[in-house]
Order: sequence, then structure tokens, then C-alpha cells
Amino acid sequence: MQDLISILDLAKEEVLEIFEKTDALLRGKIRLRLDGKIVSLAFFEPSTRTALSFESAALSMGGRVLGFTSEESISVAKGENLADTVRMLDNYSDCIVIRHKFDGAAKFASEIAQKPVINAGDGKHEHPTQTLIDLYTIKRIFGTPEGLTFGLLGDLRYARTVNSLVRGLKFFRPKKVYLISPPQLRLREEIRNELDYPTEERVDPRDVIGDIDVLYVTRIQKERFPDESEYEKVKESYRVDVRLVEEMRKDSVILHPLPRVTEIDRRIDSYPQAKYFLQASLAVPLRSVLLHEVVGGVEA
Amino acid sequence: MQDLISILDLAKEEVLEIFEKTDALLRGKIRLRLDGKIVSLAFFEPSTRTALSFESAALSMGGRVLGFTSEESISVAKGENLADTVRMLDNYSDCIVIRHKFDGAAKFASEIAQKPVINAGDGKHEHPTQTLIDLYTIKRIFGTPEGLTFGLLGDLRYARTVNSLVRGLKFFRPKKVYLISPPQLRLREEIRNELDYPTEERVDPRDVIGDIDVLYVTRIQKERFPDESEYEKVKESYRVDVRLVEEMRKDSVILHPLPRVTEIDRRIDSYPQAKYFLQASLAVPLRSVLLHEVVGGVEA
Amino acid sequence: MQDLISILDLAKEEVLEIFEKTDALLRGKIRLRLDGKIVSLAFFEPSTRTALSFESAALSMGGRVLGFTSEESISVAKGENLADTVRMLDNYSDCIVIRHKFDGAAKFASEIAQKPVINAGDGKHEHPTQTLIDLYTIKRIFGTPEGLTFGLLGDLRYARTVNSLVRGLKFFRPKKVYLISPPQLRLREEIRNELDYPTEERVDPRDVIGDIDVLYVTRIQKERFPDESEYEKVKESYRVDVRLVEEMRKDSVILHPLPRVTEIDRRIDSYPQAKYFLQASLAVPLRSVLLHEVVGGVEA
Repeated sequence: MQDLISILDLAKEEVLEIFEKTDALLRGKIRLRLDGKIVSLAFFEPSTRTALSFESAALSMGGRVLGFTSEESISVAKGENLADTVRMLDNYSDCIVIRHKFDGAAKFASEIAQKPVINAGDGKHEHPTQTLIDLYTIKRIFGTPEGLTFGLLGDLRYARTVNSLVRGLKFFRPKKVYLISPPQLRLREEIRNELDYPTEERVDPRDVIGDIDVLYVTRIQKERFPDESEYEKVKESYRVDVRLVEEMRKDSVILHPLPRVTEIDRRIDSYPQAKYFLQASLAVPLRSVLLHEVVGGVEA
Repeated sequence: MQDLISILDLAKEEVLEIFEKTDALLRGKIRLRLDGKIVSLAFFEPSTRTALSFESAALSMGGRVLGFTSEESISVAKGENLADTVRMLDNYSDCIVIRHKFDGAAKFASEIAQKPVINAGDGKHEHPTQTLIDLYTIKRIFGTPEGLTFGLLGDLRYARTVNSLVRGLKFFRPKKVYLISPPQLRLREEIRNELDYPTEERVDPRDVIGDIDVLYVTRIQKERFPDESEYEKVKESYRVDVRLVEEMRKDSVILHPLPRVTEIDRRIDSYPQAKYFLQASLAVPLRSVLLHEVVGGVEA
Repeated sequence: MQDLISILDLAKEEVLEIFEKTDALLRGKIRLRLDGKIVSLAFFEPSTRTALSFESAALSMGGRVLGFTSEESISVAKGENLADTVRMLDNYSDCIVIRHKFDGAAKFASEIAQKPVINAGDGKHEHPTQTLIDLYTIKRIFGTPEGLTFGLLGDLRYARTVNSLVRGLKFFRPKKVYLISPPQLRLREEIRNELDYPTEERVDPRDVIGDIDVLYVTRIQKERFPDESEYEKVKESYRVDVRLVEEMRKDSVILHPLPRVTEIDRRIDSYPQAKYFLQASLAVPLRSVLLHEVVGGVEA
């Protein structure tokens, strides 16, 4: 494996192998070592969870991390073009984990760098390592991600986690995927056209909530709406609250890539369907396996 | 030992054991290892000295550090509640060192996290690891912190270092503690009521300076005063200058948690009473011992 | 070797020994270890390349790094004087790498600290580790830096890289050094007086470009000019573009300490004379050797 820019850079077998290794790591059956390797974090867009979980993953295997987690912290080189910055990190490390506000920035970086590049989110394009965590969480809960019914809720137009996830689901033939969003935030047409499984667009989650195995929630951001009153109108309908969860099946689950703000009521945390903390806890082991594959560590 | 939120979470025997281990570490009699352990720094309020000394302590034992040292560097998750952020770090590390502007934030974090939590300062509440450094410095100089006369000078109302220290002194039966402050910045009544040793409030340090073994200085901050003229009036009286030090006994000492701005004249640095640089130099060894106890490292 | 404040703190033999060790490191003939050592970065002025290359160097040898890379990240201690901050890092680490906006700050730090201090740029004074990288790059390309003809282009008045380089060139008896700059940005008289080799001031690079072996480019900053129109006038003449490079000899080279903004046309990157990426790639190995000498690591 070299670069990971899109979830579709992986074959299904590679995804399953990553899941198996993560299982083995969690069961203590393998130990992964990255001694002497340096991972660089090139976070042009700030992030806490993604950056720190990559850092924890690298450190836990004996690797080291350098780089930056906000554009301001590299202010002096502000005028520097992305290519030169990537070349610099290519000299300083064995792997580049990049987040950038522009779609395609990770792909561009991978064309400049000789070292492998991992996309940690580029614009509204993709966030493939989050998708691996999402799918692996589903596999842990349901035994397999195959043949389930999904409800993707919220911002389906700009959320890169959703764009990656709908592509990743192609590996696992979902029974159906409900695309539940306000009209302004529908999944983009060109992405929906890529999908080879049944999808159905919905505006109100309550219409289909009883049919769903996995409810995947993303935040709706005020900035996406031309005026605030429109935002205020839709906001409430896409908030996961007690009333909505009471209508969900007992064996269904709620996932969220986190951080959440108001889109999931904190009272939901104690419901059996709330699996977003489990999901969050799988980020470090899964990213450990991935970094280890990409950087070429030693298995002990 | 699990969490360290208040200095009173420790028993006197535990405090003495920490001092003995620090002695042993400084004498090279023990080597403490933290290999493979990750300490997270959750500094919602910025800090240089405290954060870096914890980092130096962890690194010197072979441990690793991740986290953030200012709230801005986690801007994307600004809307995230503290509980979710703590859960995240709980997944990523073996121990959480937290600083936060709110009293009680460290306690709250410790109730969320499964990993041990160390309070590195919460609002005006406490800063227990600084108190351990303060008391250990006194023990190094006087042989024991027992039975001494203290003068606590400056802001006794809002300085968490003072709040922790007066509690920590309960272990060592001081002969007397002079609480020397402007009327607006007196030690809070509820804390003074907790103390079981003789205290005496004073406004002018010169009245008692000859009687003091340990002068503990804290900064008086302009923001505490409703108008600046009032601040300007008191500022000078609480500045440690040559005239004041000349009235101190030769075997008395001046401590300060640092950083200092103008509250200690730099000419004092060369006086024999000036022990704040010794105090600063003991931060890393003491915090090493503490981290090692809390995280559960190996003694070699 | 103790501190490295100016390139002239080194003897020629020491410079050559650093080059030989860097050769050996790159050829895999020696392995340098810094296990258990902590390097602190005290970057009061922000930097990405210099800070990260020192970090990569330390980490690649098994050392650890702590510190700060912008003044804002140490905001709470803003009022603290430099001496106290240096004393703190002296307690926390085995070596201090400092960058500061004031000429002489590194020298001052070295007088306070007991641990060795490396100057990573102080005001317009010096940047000796960059000079070592520059000279080593030249040695790699030409076999030796001795007896070459140089063209130093751009801001010769305020660029500390230039101030260090002209001093460092004293070791290698250049045939001639053309000092090519707008009149406002000439090399300062007191520095030119130090030089014991032939120099010639020029305003237009085209007059001498065919005679040059090494063209060393620095950025001209708008802030240096009293009014913007004057800046706009000179800017173009000091931009390395295709037309200028076409007039250079095929075996001549272009160096630049990076980051560059507009002063080198990106189309030049593919010309054989463009050696600034090679130069950048030598930063980590050279700084590894230097840190190893200064901190006193183990050769394996």
C-alpha cells in the first residue's frame, strides 16, 4: 500500500485485512512496531481528534510525530506554496498525513511526495481513514457491514465523512441507504451516480427511522445556509433527540464521527443505540494498523 | 494513587514518600521508566512552565506526550463539551494532565475519564503539583517543612497556588502563617476556616518580615481591581525589592511559582534568600516521580 | 563544542569535520544516537522549516524535543523576561535551539544557560546552521567550496542567512563574491569590512550572471522600503526567472534557504541549476551531526 487518498484506493480484501489486523491488535495477538519511523502531520485545517489519534497511534507503536496542526502555526511560510511545504515534510519524515481545506489537496501532495501520503480530510472530498473506522465499528457490532440498512442524516453535500462512507459502502452491498437531509444539503448527484446499491432520498428522518440499522449523523452547519432563518427551520428536524431514538429499533445503532455540538442530545449517550463512543475508541487501533501498513513497520 | 485533584487527596505519608523518591531520583539512586506510556496534556488555559515541565518529566523517563497547550489550538472542537474532549484523551493516552479556567474542571474530568487525571490548575481552586514542588523545596532547604513561619504575599484570593499551599501546610503544622495581602485579595473565608494552624492577616509585609522563614510571593493582577488607581496604590507594597529583602533574616528564603513579572526585583536574584530558581529546578524531578506513581511505570 | 552562536565560533577544521560526518551519515557508515536526550526549541519567532528540521534530526537519532514554535503559544508568560525563560528550558532539556527577533538574543541566552545553545536565527545577525547547510551543499556539488565565484542576490542588509554566509565563506577563500542588491539593501559596511576576500557590489544581476558559480538568492521584503512604489520598482530585477537562468552557465547552481515566495519562478525548478531542493534535503542530516556534536550523543 502506498498512498491513501480515497477509500476506493483500497480493494475490499485490503479493507478486510485491515479489520482483521485491528481485531488481532485489540485482542493482543499482534504487536505492531514503528520504531525509528517519523510520521508528519500536515494539518492545514485544524483538527484535534484526527490529529491526536494519528499521533497516539504512531507513539503507541514507538514511532515519532512532527508537523503542525493549524495553518497559523506555520504563519511565516504562509506565502509558500503547498508543493514546497510537502517537499519539506517529505525530507523530514517517513509518511505524511495531510488535512487541507481544498478538495484534491491530498492527491496533489501524493504526486509531489516520494513518501506515502494519507488523506486526513480534503475539503468536502473524502476522509477515508474515518470511513475505515466507521465500517470497522459496524463490523464489530453486527459481525459484518454487509447487507444492512443505513440512514445517513444531516449534511450529505459538504460532509467529507459522508462522501467517503457512501463510497466505502460499495464494498458491502447495503440493503438500502436512506439519504436524509434538507433539500439544500442532498448528496451531490455525481456521487450518487457512482453508487451501485439502493438509495432513497428523504427529508424527514421520522418517516424511515424504524427501518434503519445504522443511523450515521453529521452536523448541519449554519454557514451552509444563505440566511439564518432557513437554518433555524431545518436544524431541529436533524437533531437526534429522545423522541427520535425512542422510535429506533433496539438493535439499531447511532454513529457520529465526532466532535458533536448540538446534533445529538447528550441524554442519548446512555441509550443502547449510542455507539459513537465505541466508534471513537476504535480510532487509535485502526489508525495504528493503517499507519503500520503504509509506513512499513515491523510486526512483533 | 489514582487521580490528583486536590493536595488533600494525598495522605501525609504519600507526600513524604514522593519527597523521598525525588531525593533518590536526584541522587541517581533510582531510575524511573515510563516506556510505552502516553501522557496527555489538556491545557485549556495556556501554560509554558507547567506544561513543558510535565513534558520534560515524561520524556526523560521514556514516555511520550500528546495534547494541546492552548484552547485556540483546538478551535475546531470549540463547541465540543469538556466531557467529550476528556473521553477522547482517555482513549488516546494513559494519563490526563488538565488545566482549565473553571474551578472543579479537573474533578469533573476525573469522573469522566477511566485513566488517572492530574490537576495542573483549575480556576482559582488548586494546583497540587505546584504545592508538592513548593513543599519539597522547603524540605530541601530546611530539612523539613515542619514548624516554620510562613509569609504568603500578594493575591491570596484568586491564586490557586496559594489555595493549594495553605491546605498542604496542614500536613506540617506551621508555627504561624502570615496572610499578607491587600484587603480585596484576602484568603477566602471558607478556606481559612479549613486551616488548623495559626494564621494572622496582615496588610503590610514590613510589619512581620523579620519573623518569616519562608516568604511565598504571588503576583497581584491588575484585572482583580475595579479601577486601576486602586491597583497602582497597592502594587508597590507587594513588590519584593532590595529594601524589603534587607529586612529579612539571612536564613530565610523567598519562593515564587514563576513566571514572575515585576513582583520580584531582578536584583534580588543574587541574594542568598532567593530560592525560586532552585524551586523551579525541582519541578521536573518531582513531577517525574508523581507521573511515575500515577501512570504506573517501572522502577529500574 | 559548546554553543554555536556565530559561524565563526567554529574553526575551519570543525566545519570540515561536520561535513565529513554528514557524508558518513548519508552513506550509512555511521549511526548517531541521542537516546534519552531532550532538545528544546525556543522559537520566539515562528519558523516551520528550521524548527521541524531540528525536530526531525533529534527524533531520527532517538532524541526527544519539547518547547514552543511561536511567541503566542507562550502567551501566559508574555511578561516574563528572556533570562527566566532560558533558565526554565535549561532545567528541562540538554540543549536549547533558539530563534529570536533581536540580534544578540542567542548570545545572551548562552550566557544564562548552562546547557549548550544553538542559534537558529537572531534578528538580522546570524543563522549559522543554515550556513553550514549552504556550504555543505556547495561541497557536495563542487567537491569543495574553495575558490568559487559567488553571487549573493537580494536583501544583503537584513538577511541573517547572508550575514552568516559571508562570514562562513572566509574559511574557503572565494575567488570573488558579487554582492548584488538594491542600494537600500547593501551588505552593512561593518560586515563587509570583516571580509578578507574580493567582493564587488552590483545592482543588476544580469551584468555578472555569466561569471557566477553559485547564485544565492534571498527574498526582498516589502517592509524594508519606505514606500511601496520603490519596492515595486526593484522587485522584478531581483526575481530569478527563466530569462536570467538562461544566461547562467550550465554548471552553475542556484541556492535559496527557503521558503521562497515569488523570488524564484517555479518554472526554474526543472532547470539543472536549481539546487535548492537538494540544499533543503541536506538540512536534517547536517543538523543531526551538529546536534549530536553539541549535545554529546553516542556514535554507533
